[in-house]
Amino acid sequence: MPMVTIQVTREGSTPDRKSVTAAEKAALIKGVSQLLLDVLNKPLDATFVVIEEVEMENWGVGGLPVEAYRKLKAQ
Amino acid sequence: MPMVTIQVTREGSTPDRKSVTAAEKAALIKGVSQLLLDVLNKPLDATFVVIEEVEMENWGVGGLPVEAYRKLKAQ
Amino acid sequence: MPMVTIQVTREGSTPDRKSVTAAEKAALIKGVSQLLLDVLNKPLDATFVVIEEVEMENWGVGGLPVEAYRKLKAQ
Amino acid sequence: MPMVTIQVTREGSTPDRKSVTAAEKAALIKGVSQLLLDVLNKPLDATFVVIEEVEMENWGVGGLPVEAYRKLKAQ
Amino acid sequence: MPMVTIQVTREGSTPDRKSVTAAEKAALIKGVSQLLLDVLNKPLDATFVVIEEVEMENWGVGGLPVEAYRKLKAQ
Amino acid sequence: MPMVTIQVTREGSTPDRKSVTAAEKAALIKGVSQLLLDVLNKPLDATFVVIEEVEMENWGVGGLPVEAYRKLKAQ
Repeated sequence: MPMVTIQVTREGSTPDRKSVTAAEKAALIKGVSQLLLDVLNKPLDATFVVIEEVEMENWGVGGLPVEAYRKLKAQ
Repeated sequence: MPMVTIQVTREGSTPDRKSVTAAEKAALIKGVSQLLLDVLNKPLDATFVVIEEVEMENWGVGGLPVEAYRKLKAQ
Repeated sequence: MPMVTIQVTREGSTPDRKSVTAAEKAALIKGVSQLLLDVLNKPLDATFVVIEEVEMENWGVGGLPVEAYRKLKAQ
Repeated sequence: MPMVTIQVTREGSTPDRKSVTAAEKAALIKGVSQLLLDVLNKPLDATFVVIEEVEMENWGVGGLPVEAYRKLKAQ
Repeated sequence: MPMVTIQVTREGSTPDRKSVTAAEKAALIKGVSQLLLDVLNKPLDATFVVIEEVEMENWGVGGLPVEAYRKLKAQ
Repeated sequence: MPMVTIQVTREGSTPDRKSVTAAEKAALIKGVSQLLLDVLNKPLDATFVVIEEVEMENWGVGGLPVEAYRKLKAQ
């Protein structure tokens, strides 16, 4: 009875997208549920998946909000 | 000093409702805090409760987003 | 499809116990699943519950580990 | 490779503010990342921080939603 | 910068195993990190994965500890 | 009423230590509680902190368990 939580920043996977699409979310749910079936023999029905989209300003890395961190690394 | 997290899909408890109501949230907070007092002798003041409402498309079960899963099961 | 996480300190509910008992855990699982059925009409089968026992030295409140905090408050 | 989750109620730090500001979030990210460097020698780059703002009606303490609890305590 | 948490019951994937093996954990980490690269273009280096093994008596479903639930369903 | 969760790998902060010490945990609890007081005016008493130590083989980054990842990076 696995429970999977996927936290990602709320942004698009390509520059023309503003957020994760419903199709991408469905692909994450399908992929990770299949992975738990393949690796641990967990039936698909027994796996719950929750996707949490986190606002960019609420995500930090390197001691900075993620956008400031990326700008610094891109320099 | 218990900490309880309740994650539910963002939908109403009856067809005419679109989301969990404030009264329902208060009932969850009261009920689970009382449960921790009854079972583990935890004072009400010592229990924190956080309710997280998860968008339907962000919740997966059976390898599918929850709405697609329910449709499949209803067939 | 609710998911409930209950975090408690790893200690007994009475002085002669060292930890939460299996019967107490079962009572928490039963009680919170029933609460979600009563308040939000969630079927028992759709609710997952995870209990996390946290070592006393890993739990803080009031800027102190919980045992130090309780001693301070008891003075 | 630490992961820090900070959950706070969605409210301002002073009466004239409605929510946590971007500057306050940056200060939380900076401060907690520095703390993990100072105490555990974790490099800044290795620490992820996620801030979760929780609606007031979704946070409970003392068996009540937090606003009702504060009113009761203020009496 | 995704963060994935995988919670599973502490039990083996086959009857002769008592717990998830290190090789199975590595397969979960590899698979879910690859999934986030494939679906959302997240670089492997940017994804953190945490696996949490939960004691059987700490996991509930259907209002019962998971072992009691499975026995009931197997009848 | 903030809730802070700090997840770290279960290892020492220096080569001669096997795990995080009680003094280091107390320093994390004190530091992050003070941070929330300084930045958001949250009273010390209102902040809960939970430290979760995660086994090395249960933590992944770069598609690998963390020890394999560090060896690769050290080459």
